[in-house]
Amino acid sequence: MSFQLKTQGATGDAAYTVKVKALKDRLESQIPSYLRLDPALIDSLPLDVTGIPASSGLLTPAELAITELDATAVCAKIASGELTAVATVTAFGKRAAIAHQVTACLTDFFLDEGIQRAKELDEYFQREGKVTGPLHGLPISIKDHIPIKGRWGSGGFFSIVEQSTDDCDMTAVLRSLGAVFYVKTNQPQTIMHLECQSCYGRTLNPYNSALTPGGSSGGEAALIAMKGSCMGVGTDVGGSIRGPCAHCGIYGIRPTSKTMPMGGFLWYQPGQDGIHPSTGPMCASARDMRLFLEAVLSARPSLLDPALIPVPLAKPDLSKTKLRVGVMFHDGVVMPHPPMLRALELAKAKLQASPLVEVVDFVPYNHDEGYSITRSMYYEDGGKTVREMLKAGGEDILLLSEWIISPPHVVEHDAIAMWKLHDRRDTFRRAYSDHWNQQGVDVLLCPPFPGTAARHDTTTYWGYTAIFNILDYPGVVFPTGIKADPSIDVPRDFGSPMSPADEYNRSLYDPQIFVGAPVNLQVIARRFDDGLALAAQELIEQIIKA
Amino acid sequence: MSFQLKTQGATGDAAYTVKVKALKDRLESQIPSYLRLDPALIDSLPLDVTGIPASSGLLTPAELAITELDATAVCAKIASGELTAVATVTAFGKRAAIAHQVTACLTDFFLDEGIQRAKELDEYFQREGKVTGPLHGLPISIKDHIPIKGRWGSGGFFSIVEQSTDDCDMTAVLRSLGAVFYVKTNQPQTIMHLECQSCYGRTLNPYNSALTPGGSSGGEAALIAMKGSCMGVGTDVGGSIRGPCAHCGIYGIRPTSKTMPMGGFLWYQPGQDGIHPSTGPMCASARDMRLFLEAVLSARPSLLDPALIPVPLAKPDLSKTKLRVGVMFHDGVVMPHPPMLRALELAKAKLQASPLVEVVDFVPYNHDEGYSITRSMYYEDGGKTVREMLKAGGEDILLLSEWIISPPHVVEHDAIAMWKLHDRRDTFRRAYSDHWNQQGVDVLLCPPFPGTAARHDTTTYWGYTAIFNILDYPGVVFPTGIKADPSIDVPRDFGSPMSPADEYNRSLYDPQIFVGAPVNLQVIARRFDDGLALAAQELIEQIIKA
Repeated sequence: MSFQLKTQGATGDAAYTVKVKALKDRLESQIPSYLRLDPALIDSLPLDVTGIPASSGLLTPAELAITELDATAVCAKIASGELTAVATVTAFGKRAAIAHQVTACLTDFFLDEGIQRAKELDEYFQREGKVTGPLHGLPISIKDHIPIKGRWGSGGFFSIVEQSTDDCDMTAVLRSLGAVFYVKTNQPQTIMHLECQSCYGRTLNPYNSALTPGGSSGGEAALIAMKGSCMGVGTDVGGSIRGPCAHCGIYGIRPTSKTMPMGGFLWYQPGQDGIHPSTGPMCASARDMRLFLEAVLSARPSLLDPALIPVPLAKPDLSKTKLRVGVMFHDGVVMPHPPMLRALELAKAKLQASPLVEVVDFVPYNHDEGYSITRSMYYEDGGKTVREMLKAGGEDILLLSEWIISPPHVVEHDAIAMWKLHDRRDTFRRAYSDHWNQQGVDVLLCPPFPGTAARHDTTTYWGYTAIFNILDYPGVVFPTGIKADPSIDVPRDFGSPMSPADEYNRSLYDPQIFVGAPVNLQVIARRFDDGLALAAQELIEQIIKA
Repeated sequence: MSFQLKTQGATGDAAYTVKVKALKDRLESQIPSYLRLDPALIDSLPLDVTGIPASSGLLTPAELAITELDATAVCAKIASGELTAVATVTAFGKRAAIAHQVTACLTDFFLDEGIQRAKELDEYFQREGKVTGPLHGLPISIKDHIPIKGRWGSGGFFSIVEQSTDDCDMTAVLRSLGAVFYVKTNQPQTIMHLECQSCYGRTLNPYNSALTPGGSSGGEAALIAMKGSCMGVGTDVGGSIRGPCAHCGIYGIRPTSKTMPMGGFLWYQPGQDGIHPSTGPMCASARDMRLFLEAVLSARPSLLDPALIPVPLAKPDLSKTKLRVGVMFHDGVVMPHPPMLRALELAKAKLQASPLVEVVDFVPYNHDEGYSITRSMYYEDGGKTVREMLKAGGEDILLLSEWIISPPHVVEHDAIAMWKLHDRRDTFRRAYSDHWNQQGVDVLLCPPFPGTAARHDTTTYWGYTAIFNILDYPGVVFPTGIKADPSIDVPRDFGSPMSPADEYNRSLYDPQIFVGAPVNLQVIARRFDDGLALAAQELIEQIIKA
């Protein structure tokens, strides 16, 4: 299949087709000719394209070395004068151009602007002998629906593609901290798939193009896995940070809602209060997540946006207490595929052998009910708004968009029905919290998804991430280092399926298909225990990888 | 007018009348005969009944002295062994019985239970030589819709009066901290009047029975002003703590929502997310507010209820910075009555003369729009639920209940209309916050109400409190020591009214009517700045009263 066909975007009527072609031509034309890959290569790519940037010859060894750094190292090297902001954004920008040509991960490319900003920062550093802020010179990639002044963005539909007139709160804060913007990244139609297909196209998983990079922050995840960025910003209301990070073998956190600035993000259901999204970093290392959160909090965003909650980010010293880690292999609804189970088995064995933590088998509490409430909450208007957005752009509805707004979960609500749904949510939250307290765990280690990255257009079970959206518990995902291996990850026999979703998930498994897909795990903490989630993830990763 | 007529409750159909009589007989029978006032006295009460407990002869001088203490002093004296829990609850309980006979402030009286609990606490103290918690032996009065195991409560309608099977979170926490329960207090039908008339009756203002004690926590305020309690718990979604505290000359704080436990409170619109209520202390001194909040937070209620936000309560040292106090005389919608303006003038002059603070004239931002959004948010079902609750009990709708659910503010919403309303709310919040930041104030000093306590059944302008509910800014009210005085507080000429609400408010003013009504002021801080609000209030009061 040609690359063009593999990355085919949402279709539409004649007017849509013409206008979307212009949009894609604009994006295409933004990639300068000196960064173009050989067209022949593009149509004969290997399943795993992560080696292409190094083999392309388009980056110097010094540039390749820069792109191997994590954000913490980048900031340190720029702050010490070892690296310039211009060299840094140039390296990541070049690699991002390549990443896009093999995964279709971008929606806007403006390296020239990034270099211009980097120059100003370098001049400041030269002149003042100090950095402007904790992220001075750090190139940060930004998901499509997060506005950057003058750049392209959309709220998940062609009909609301815009050139943003202003920075949103997050990009304004990051800019004030010294960040450099240079690319925006793809997200799916509706921004509500754990998949990544928009009017721009379909993003591919860098480790295996037969698989999705996940969504909705799928462009970010593919870009960061390709090392075209070491720090990106995603959003998550059902798994949209954690899913793609997990599918692409990178790090990411969905912070507790309302702790990170989201003012000005493009969204088509403003005022929706049933379930709150969150925004957070997707990045190359565990320490980068803390770097990002601490930097943003240092700007005191709650003074800017009164919707934000100024809970301090704790930095617990876990050497002083024995962390109690709950381990959950499955949620009682869908059994994960063999590669995920292998990673969990390894992790549990290593944790049990460690004197640093205590391991408890965590019993899930009614995840089916929780996921069901979540799905109903997403579209309390019965999906009317989505259909209007599509109609306004002449855009065809994608399979996964149709699925996400379908009954029985999605129905039209009046005020009383909405209150009842929200009350059901509150009752579930309380019951889950009681259950968690009874098990006495500090954090939970569990799958972020019932398998590795999924085959395209098959992701309908979001339960492993979405449950923690409805609970609003912070969640961190991290790579275990394990990758799906057909010689080890043979199908297992679990008897009767636990649910129709389990049966479907089981039907999707074929060891050959998932070859090379990374396996991440997820660490969950209680609401507002974001600092503990980060510290626990670091400790757990250290034990697992020891 | 007889006391019975003055305190007439909500009426209803024949079955309602019979059942409500039983409810009132139960309450009546709970007041023991040795605590009864002379019936002749009750029908010839002075306007100001605050002197009755002392003159009644029903309390010993020692008991009267106990009831003059604030909660902080009570806790300290019990913890030092100077006072017993039994003596304390006995004194407050006796005084509460008298308070009820002259203001109709109670809905349940169970001093025997309180004494039994106090005995256990005294025994523990004797045995262990220490207190069980920071509120050991403190009698706390509780608003009707806040359940105490085995006691009477209701969600604002006769149809949902219950004997509670369990403590709610708040009373469970308070109990665990050592509190002693002995009374529950009156609230209005719907719990949504700034007035206090329920099926039990109408509560009167202790300082002037022609006036309301305010609502919805009006029973609490009347009781505490009568010194039948030094610490009570109220709730506030439009002014229901601050209004009654202001009307009755006591202290109270509406904390930022979701910081204090509300799990299990009786409420007829569970799941309503547009505007969140809050709960907090109503009490005899400024320091008692902090005592209460710190004690409750010490129990870590956010571990019990995942809806709660664990923002620490700051204790800023205001001697180190110069507090910037915005002063607002009126909100641009309704001009306060002369006694309130006099208090503001005094406060401003004193603050301006103080080296400890900087005074800024605070310009209000579109309070009319804010109050309008708030009113629409209360009943997004168009008031259907209220009408059903009334119908189920055969209860007639009160004037102020009809008003609160009436168009144009109250209409039926579907999901999309609700999102639009909530988006309008979010836009207002952001604009107000920007406006506040531009004025650069730390706290705001303003009226809690456009006058002193109102005449019965006239309170339809909640703007001075409700605006800070929609903004979710913490608000503290405190007595200035000023009382309405017909010889000073003569009508003033302000030219044309600012609004129909202003015209109505103006028409209500007659210096003679409001004689003796206390004047409180309100201190507002940014969302989650509850600790600053408390510290600023103490400083401001100290300056004003110096």
